[in-house]
Amino acid sequence: MPQHSPDSLADTIAPRILRGERRALARAITLIESGRADHRAQAVALLDRLKDAGRSALRVGLSGTPGVGKSTFIESFGMMLTAQGKRVAVLAVDPSSARSGGSILGDKTRMERLSRDPNAFIRPSPSQTQLGGVARRTREAVMLCEAAGFDLVLIETVGVGQSETVVAEMSDLFLLLMAPAGGDELQGVKRGIMEIADMIVVNKADGALKSTATRTCADYAGALRLLRKRPQDPDEFPKAIMVSAVEEMGLQAAWDDMQLLAEWRRASGHWATRRAAQAQYWFEEEVRQGLLARLTTDPVARARLAELGAQVAKGKALPGVAADEMLNWLAR
Amino acid sequence: MPQHSPDSLADTIAPRILRGERRALARAITLIESGRADHRAQAVALLDRLKDAGRSALRVGLSGTPGVGKSTFIESFGMMLTAQGKRVAVLAVDPSSARSGGSILGDKTRMERLSRDPNAFIRPSPSQTQLGGVARRTREAVMLCEAAGFDLVLIETVGVGQSETVVAEMSDLFLLLMAPAGGDELQGVKRGIMEIADMIVVNKADGALKSTATRTCADYAGALRLLRKRPQDPDEFPKAIMVSAVEEMGLQAAWDDMQLLAEWRRASGHWATRRAAQAQYWFEEEVRQGLLARLTTDPVARARLAELGAQVAKGKALPGVAADEMLNWLAR
Repeated sequence: MPQHSPDSLADTIAPRILRGERRALARAITLIESGRADHRAQAVALLDRLKDAGRSALRVGLSGTPGVGKSTFIESFGMMLTAQGKRVAVLAVDPSSARSGGSILGDKTRMERLSRDPNAFIRPSPSQTQLGGVARRTREAVMLCEAAGFDLVLIETVGVGQSETVVAEMSDLFLLLMAPAGGDELQGVKRGIMEIADMIVVNKADGALKSTATRTCADYAGALRLLRKRPQDPDEFPKAIMVSAVEEMGLQAAWDDMQLLAEWRRASGHWATRRAAQAQYWFEEEVRQGLLARLTTDPVARARLAELGAQVAKGKALPGVAADEMLNWLAR
Repeated sequence: MPQHSPDSLADTIAPRILRGERRALARAITLIESGRADHRAQAVALLDRLKDAGRSALRVGLSGTPGVGKSTFIESFGMMLTAQGKRVAVLAVDPSSARSGGSILGDKTRMERLSRDPNAFIRPSPSQTQLGGVARRTREAVMLCEAAGFDLVLIETVGVGQSETVVAEMSDLFLLLMAPAGGDELQGVKRGIMEIADMIVVNKADGALKSTATRTCADYAGALRLLRKRPQDPDEFPKAIMVSAVEEMGLQAAWDDMQLLAEWRRASGHWATRRAAQAQYWFEEEVRQGLLARLTTDPVARARLAELGAQVAKGKALPGVAADEMLNWLAR
C-alpha cells in the first residue's frame, strides 16, 4: 500500500466507499486489519470521515456449528435478498483462524454464486491471534459496509468459546442456525446462547430430515418459551422457525420475521439504546484489553512477569505479594 | 486490633499458628480479610514467616447447589475424620456474600456439632465485593490452615458463576455434590463443571430417594466416561459415588477414594506440578485484576472513562479511537 497522510487517503477512499464501490471497501478493510501504526492512523481518519454518513444497515449475527449448513443458508438467503434489490455483506468472526488459518469463509469455493453477485460482498475472517483484535476489525468492517450502503450485514461465527457473545454484542439481531436432531442432542445447546438468540433457525427441513426438523423446531420453541420474556420484543419472539436452504423454503418468512423484530425495536427505541450500549461496551472492553496487553507487548514487562511468576511457581514468593510487586513496578 | 509493626505481630502470632491454636488462626484470617494497608503489611509478613513451614494439607474443593445437603455432608464427613484423629478446616467461597451478606456458612446453626469439635475449624465466607478479593483471602486462609497443621482443608462453594473455577484453581481435588434427580434434570450440570470434577458425589442415597440416587449415580458415571481420560489419574477417575450424609453411609469409601487419588498424583509428580501452576495462575490473575482495578479505584480515571464512554454512546467518538485515547491517558 503506497504512503499517504492519514487525511489524504481518507479523502480519496471515503467518497468511493460512500458510492458503494466494493474494491474501495475491500481496501479499507485491509487497512483496518493492518497492524502498522501508519495504517491505523489512516483507518481512524477514514472511519471518522464515514461515521456521520447516517446510513444504517440491519446487522444480523449468525452462529451455527460446522455441518448445520451455514454457507448454504447464507448463499440461498443472500441470493434471495439480492434478487429483491438488497445489498448484502457477509463478514466472519472465526476464533479458530489464528490456529487453522481460518476454518470459515476461508475457502473460496464457498458461496460461489453469492460471491459473484454484484450486490453482495463477502469477506473472510482475518488471521489474528486475539479475539479482541478480530472483534475490533469486525466492528469497524461493519461500519464500513454500512457507509457503503449495504442493507444487511451478516456477521457469521461458529459456536466456539466466546465468539457468539462477541458477535451478539455487535449485532441488532442474533440468529442461531441448527440442524435437525434427536431429543438427546438438544441439550447440546449452551444455555447462554439460547438466551441471546432472537431466532433459532432449524435448517435442512427437507427430504428424509423433514419430520425430524419439525420435531426439533417444536422442541426449541418449547425451550424458548421457558426463557424469560423480553419486554422489548413482540410476544412471539424469541422464536424457532424451520427452513431448507437447499430447497429455498422458509427463507422469505425468516426475512419477514427479522424485519418485523427490527422494526418493532426501532419503534420502541430499543434499537438505539442497544447500539449505544454496544458502543460503550466495546469502548470499555478495548480499554481493558489494552491495559492487559501491556503485560505481553512490552518485553521488559513480560520478562519481569515471567521472572516473578517463576519465583511464585517455585514457592519462593507468595502469589499476592509478587502480584503487588509487579503492579508497583508497572505503576512506577 | 492493636498497632503492631508487621514483624512484631508475625513474631507473636506465627508460633501460635504453628502450634495449631484456633484463636490465633481466626485472628490471622481476620487480618488477611482486612482492607487496611497496615493490616496488609502485617498479613504479608505473617504469610512469609509461615510459607516455609513445610506442612501440606489435602485441599479439597466442594461445590453443590443449595439443597443438595452440603452442610450435612460436611458435618458428617468432618466428624468421621476428626473421630479418626484428623484435623479438618472448612472455608467458604460465596460469590453472593457481597449482596446477601453470605448465603453459605453464614448461619451459625449450620454444622453445629462440627463447629464445637476441637479438631475442626470453620470459617464463613467474608463479605467482599470482588470474587477476586474473596479468592485471595481464601487462598491465604488455606495456607494459614496448612501452617496450623490441619490435615484436610475443605473449600466449599455454590455452583454460581465463576466460583467453581475459582475453588478448583486452589484445590488438589474437586468434588461435586449432587442430589438424586430424574433424567431431565441431569442436563442441568454445566459441562465445564463435569470437566473439572474429580468425583461426583450423589448425596441422599437413603429412604425413598435411594433407588433414584442409584440411577442418578449410574447416569453421572456414564456421562463421566464420555469425557477424555486424564493421563495423570488412575483409570476409575473421575468417578461417581453415592453417599448418605444423614445415615453416614459411604463416607469412608469417599475418603478412601480421595486419598487414593491424592497419593497417585503425589507419586506421579502431578500434585507438585499442579500446585506450582496454580500459584502462577493466581499471581498472573492478581496482576490482571490489579491492573483493571485502576479503572475503577482512581476517581480521576473513572471520571475520564465515564466521559469518553458517554461520547461513544452518543456516537460522537468511535469505540476504538476513544479506547486508544483512554489508554494513552493512562500511560501518560
